[in-house]
Amino acid sequence: MTHPPALPIRFAILGAGRMGAEHGLALVGLPEVQVVAVADPVEAAARKVARITRAARTYADPLDAIHNPEVQAVIIVTPTSTHAALIEAAALAGKAIFCEKPVAADLTETERVMHLVQQQGVPFQIGFQRRYDASFMQARERILAGEVGQVEQFSATGRDPAPPPLEYLKVSGGIFLDQAIHDLDIARFLVGEVKEVMAIGDVKVDPAIATIGDADTTTVLLTFENGAQGVVQNSRRAVYGYDVRTEVFGSGGKLVMDATPKTPLVRYGEGVTSDHYHFFMDRFKDAYRAEIAAFVSALTQGRDPTPGAHDALESLRLALACTRSLNEGRPVRVQDVQATPEAQVGG
Amino acid sequence: MTHPPALPIRFAILGAGRMGAEHGLALVGLPEVQVVAVADPVEAAARKVARITRAARTYADPLDAIHNPEVQAVIIVTPTSTHAALIEAAALAGKAIFCEKPVAADLTETERVMHLVQQQGVPFQIGFQRRYDASFMQARERILAGEVGQVEQFSATGRDPAPPPLEYLKVSGGIFLDQAIHDLDIARFLVGEVKEVMAIGDVKVDPAIATIGDADTTTVLLTFENGAQGVVQNSRRAVYGYDVRTEVFGSGGKLVMDATPKTPLVRYGEGVTSDHYHFFMDRFKDAYRAEIAAFVSALTQGRDPTPGAHDALESLRLALACTRSLNEGRPVRVQDVQATPEAQVGG
Amino acid sequence: MTHPPALPIRFAILGAGRMGAEHGLALVGLPEVQVVAVADPVEAAARKVARITRAARTYADPLDAIHNPEVQAVIIVTPTSTHAALIEAAALAGKAIFCEKPVAADLTETERVMHLVQQQGVPFQIGFQRRYDASFMQARERILAGEVGQVEQFSATGRDPAPPPLEYLKVSGGIFLDQAIHDLDIARFLVGEVKEVMAIGDVKVDPAIATIGDADTTTVLLTFENGAQGVVQNSRRAVYGYDVRTEVFGSGGKLVMDATPKTPLVRYGEGVTSDHYHFFMDRFKDAYRAEIAAFVSALTQGRDPTPGAHDALESLRLALACTRSLNEGRPVRVQDVQATPEAQVGG
Amino acid sequence: MTHPPALPIRFAILGAGRMGAEHGLALVGLPEVQVVAVADPVEAAARKVARITRAARTYADPLDAIHNPEVQAVIIVTPTSTHAALIEAAALAGKAIFCEKPVAADLTETERVMHLVQQQGVPFQIGFQRRYDASFMQARERILAGEVGQVEQFSATGRDPAPPPLEYLKVSGGIFLDQAIHDLDIARFLVGEVKEVMAIGDVKVDPAIATIGDADTTTVLLTFENGAQGVVQNSRRAVYGYDVRTEVFGSGGKLVMDATPKTPLVRYGEGVTSDHYHFFMDRFKDAYRAEIAAFVSALTQGRDPTPGAHDALESLRLALACTRSLNEGRPVRVQDVQATPEAQVGG
Repeated sequence: MTHPPALPIRFAILGAGRMGAEHGLALVGLPEVQVVAVADPVEAAARKVARITRAARTYADPLDAIHNPEVQAVIIVTPTSTHAALIEAAALAGKAIFCEKPVAADLTETERVMHLVQQQGVPFQIGFQRRYDASFMQARERILAGEVGQVEQFSATGRDPAPPPLEYLKVSGGIFLDQAIHDLDIARFLVGEVKEVMAIGDVKVDPAIATIGDADTTTVLLTFENGAQGVVQNSRRAVYGYDVRTEVFGSGGKLVMDATPKTPLVRYGEGVTSDHYHFFMDRFKDAYRAEIAAFVSALTQGRDPTPGAHDALESLRLALACTRSLNEGRPVRVQDVQATPEAQVGG
Repeated sequence: MTHPPALPIRFAILGAGRMGAEHGLALVGLPEVQVVAVADPVEAAARKVARITRAARTYADPLDAIHNPEVQAVIIVTPTSTHAALIEAAALAGKAIFCEKPVAADLTETERVMHLVQQQGVPFQIGFQRRYDASFMQARERILAGEVGQVEQFSATGRDPAPPPLEYLKVSGGIFLDQAIHDLDIARFLVGEVKEVMAIGDVKVDPAIATIGDADTTTVLLTFENGAQGVVQNSRRAVYGYDVRTEVFGSGGKLVMDATPKTPLVRYGEGVTSDHYHFFMDRFKDAYRAEIAAFVSALTQGRDPTPGAHDALESLRLALACTRSLNEGRPVRVQDVQATPEAQVGG
Repeated sequence: MTHPPALPIRFAILGAGRMGAEHGLALVGLPEVQVVAVADPVEAAARKVARITRAARTYADPLDAIHNPEVQAVIIVTPTSTHAALIEAAALAGKAIFCEKPVAADLTETERVMHLVQQQGVPFQIGFQRRYDASFMQARERILAGEVGQVEQFSATGRDPAPPPLEYLKVSGGIFLDQAIHDLDIARFLVGEVKEVMAIGDVKVDPAIATIGDADTTTVLLTFENGAQGVVQNSRRAVYGYDVRTEVFGSGGKLVMDATPKTPLVRYGEGVTSDHYHFFMDRFKDAYRAEIAAFVSALTQGRDPTPGAHDALESLRLALACTRSLNEGRPVRVQDVQATPEAQVGG
Repeated sequence: MTHPPALPIRFAILGAGRMGAEHGLALVGLPEVQVVAVADPVEAAARKVARITRAARTYADPLDAIHNPEVQAVIIVTPTSTHAALIEAAALAGKAIFCEKPVAADLTETERVMHLVQQQGVPFQIGFQRRYDASFMQARERILAGEVGQVEQFSATGRDPAPPPLEYLKVSGGIFLDQAIHDLDIARFLVGEVKEVMAIGDVKVDPAIATIGDADTTTVLLTFENGAQGVVQNSRRAVYGYDVRTEVFGSGGKLVMDATPKTPLVRYGEGVTSDHYHFFMDRFKDAYRAEIAAFVSALTQGRDPTPGAHDALESLRLALACTRSLNEGRPVRVQDVQATPEAQVGG
């Protein structure tokens, strides 16, 4: 892809599930973009997203879409286990890449692929959509502008309405890599790198989750490199809905990012009641649109998209440190989590 | 247009200003729709919206777009003074019509055009977008379900950040027709028809508004046909932003529709502070999308779109009653506001 | 009473009901005060309040307490119909007077008694406790400091959980004098005098209220002398609790006084729920304490207590104007509500 | 003191500082109580509280008040270092005891004195006033009633506007014993006993605090005996005010106890702003009254007051465990924190 590219930029969407349709809607709202192809082994799904995006071609195999010479950029929203291979293929083919998190559940593999992306020099963005939520974006600007002074304490809560299916959990890499990583990435985004973690966790929601060696309820203590203190609490189940609350406290004040009622309607009857979000796509609908718009904007302006390879790698390393701390029942220094030597050589 | 029509339905957007672009984005997100034409005397504007909507054709004259035989439905977002003539042309051409409010500032003309639309049997929707805001939609459902019991009191506040340009105000029909009509339409939507109004008003924001015989700050007392009592307060200027608050009180409780903070971020420093909406398009962004989706959905399912000709007419009549009450300093019965006899004969 | 008086100031509490006990608690918390007597025809009630206040004497007849030479100040919380006579007796005896609103339901009688109070030069305070609520006090300070600029619109809602007994309503003077007068007094406190009112009202809560010629649900349009516009809505019944909301809007911003949740506890389950006040004494507990403290403070410092005779009179006149407007179905100028000529002569 | 005692119960207040005056006001509002004595080495202070409470006697030495045979119950609000000795004297004299926290900064001394209290059989209450705040009381009832199901996660934040003077801090026992202990006690109150803690902490507010070996900013990870996970964050300085937020999450929902705006007034100007509490006595004013009323109520009804000796001891042990964890940089089991052997023999 030339920089800046001739417009419109021609996209392929790899994966035509819920996120494929969502990102398709985001793309079709951008005049700088033309979606030319959609790939999914389920033909009906591919056709549906092609109809939404007015894409001319559908493919069963995402590799065929990648190798279509018309395609300049790809959106990877296929199953997690395929991410690394598709990134690799796209990078080798010189395509710009937006990929849902994670690259891989494995640090060695992630390092290898991120290294390749950088060698090939293709634009790469990882799907930490919260960074494009208005509250987190504005919080970061305010922190950088010194509005809370020196950051001293960080606190994040992330709870989903209900756990995903066990089949999904088995290949998810565990609660820290799959769920808490959003809160951990926001910790890095707003406060900085983490030096050490101490995690506790348990199975409280579904005993089946214990059988696959995962936890569903966790709490982590964090020490940041800059001396700030942090906590992250997660649960796979909140009967009242989708619960994401983040607080940054410093010498000059504090910022709280907490979902307002989903609908601006308050009911006075038995108590005073409002509604809560029940679905991450509702809560972060605008953020999903904004991250795609930012990716496109970076491409058209020849800037590096963000968050990129470095954030994909470091947020994974942090999540892996939490996993190790929980497994070993002791504090773990984040920099002690490293790819295996062979991998490092290979990378 | 056949019912149900073959998909996609082919649209023309008449008027390529801010609302044309906004409705264009809504249309392009709907797979049932193909935008085939955009009309605007300013060619660059037309091209811009055509690029957003991937429309093949642009026209300088909206009548040319209406008469393009490919076009099955039109979105009218041209200047207010042209609405009636374009509705008339589109109705005679058998096109489905979505038109921003108002049809006309004049009851006689509005009755004539709405009558024509009904005679021609073309689908017609008027742009009272608040009816598609999640809070008002849910409020209506809850009221119909009996959640607040018998409705007894209604209260609405509508304030804009700043008045529009004087040139716009001169042809706007006055504050009740231009601004308060949204609150008055919601009063009808949530409570029912209004029997009598008593309005007071004044110029507090800009003395120039007095020179064109308009008010910029008004308060209206309403008596509904069903016995409920109501108040509507409007101002053309609120330094803190866009202020829309509505309350429905009844024997079983009350509902309050009030904008939550624009960004779910609360700042603790000097006091506890959050942001407010400053722009109606931000506050009702989702409602603008939803009203277009509802129009398209009505077309594909062969249902009458809503709000339609009756609401266009009755909300205008109510706004005119407020205007008359303010001018004459006395209570006015809404049914006493009628088109002029010639018009009635003509209609 | 000398100014400043020797401490402690010796009080009698006339009336040992709920308000007598409440004001007794306020007095006993003030070191400048000694309660020496409590009067109530119900001996047990008088004894109970005497025990709370450590008062040495109880009386059956409040006049005996007034004429006790030890007593320097009286708190009148007897039934409304006795207020005027007790104020008269206390004024003639030279005692400082705090009296629950109203002085009388009748303008002629109120003028006569307030005139006497002023002639006798005794300190007098009327029990509009909302003026001592932190939110209303601070709002007034902010308005006077120019924080909302020129006041342009006022809006107040006042709803009680349930109507009082019919026997009480019969002698209450009607909804405007008994209930709305608090909102009307706050309108005067925050915005200024009212020029004209237009009231609508009805019986929606209990048909028995119609049989005594009263309304239970009312809405009033107000035009202030300074040109501001206002509305006041009242209801005798709100199933969700005690509902007092007041808004002052001006060229520089707006202030909203609305009860926060009674308990700072939010519950997340089926929706997000908090509690509402169900009782005016809960909502205004601190204001009741503060108004008594302010009365004592005025006495010790030799200042005129506030709100005094003028406010007792003018807020009553405003409430009577609302009553007349409702009865006659037309706008009423407040200054047209005058005492009967005989009374004026007598006064 | 007999059970139930003849009324009124005769109290002495030991210590006539701010808390002495505050508890004096609480006592004087209770008809079951007569304050007969106030003790303070500063005679003017003692007289001031005597005037508030109408107490007949003042003493310079609290032991003289304890040994006044009229006195049946004492309120100990003297400097912390004198608590243990005064409790001991009062217990030996058979007086009912309310004592501000802590008994002592030392577990050995606390165990010894609490043991004595129990041996003497005198009623004893420790001043953890938050347990009598309406939000925490109601939260506990709701948790016990099963409203949040099984408790799974606890989170508490406690921040003061500014650190106390260094002289005070030197004898305070450290941040966990002096400040965090309120949050730790609430953790025990709402969730149960804690098994293990891991604390991090630092000096961020004032370097002088480091010179006395204390921290001013801390974060603690807690594992409860029942398996729940917890975090407690504290800071000695919050520029925006007094910040106490507590959350209990469980299988059935969550409860959030967070201070509503201090004044129910919202200002719309540059943003939407409300006020925050700046002082713990404002935030917990009602709780301070309620804990004294509860103490008196327990005395009159012959019940054991709560929280008593057990809570004084166990909340201290938990705070000491946090201190040890911070000092040693490792997780600490709470039951490993024990009084020294000599002390245990002595106790």
